[in-house]
Amino acid sequence: MKAKVYVTLKPGVLDPQGKAIHHSAELLGFSNISDIRQGKYFEISLDDAVNETEAREAAEKIAHEVLANPVIEDYRVEIV
Amino acid sequence: MKAKVYVTLKPGVLDPQGKAIHHSAELLGFSNISDIRQGKYFEISLDDAVNETEAREAAEKIAHEVLANPVIEDYRVEIV
Repeated sequence: MKAKVYVTLKPGVLDPQGKAIHHSAELLGFSNISDIRQGKYFEISLDDAVNETEAREAAEKIAHEVLANPVIEDYRVEIV
Repeated sequence: MKAKVYVTLKPGVLDPQGKAIHHSAELLGFSNISDIRQGKYFEISLDDAVNETEAREAAEKIAHEVLANPVIEDYRVEIV
């Protein structure tokens, strides 16, 4: 069982890395972009014995405690 | 119009950062994880005048040229 975790900065939190990418993209001629924000993406492979509910619980816990900083970041968990 | 770009390491490419996260998660007591791989996630806001086909084209191009290293990374583009 696999869990996908998407971590994004909360709206309103400044994203200098995204701004830098936006700037680079503009220099390279991409002119129709209004904004780029960078986030993180994790694929967690869980043991086969784990069922979907347990997988979601474990992934939510890892996302909250390890992968994201809940003060400035939001996260979303998807089980596949 | 928004494009979401997911960048992941190709299978077989070593992911030391993912390994480090896996190790930290184990130390914190998460025992049912077999692997963690880290990727990148980008949200690109495009000008409203851009239609879906153009948005996908632009996002694929940016993903290929700026956001991912196609030698070792795969990317996936989603238009929302």
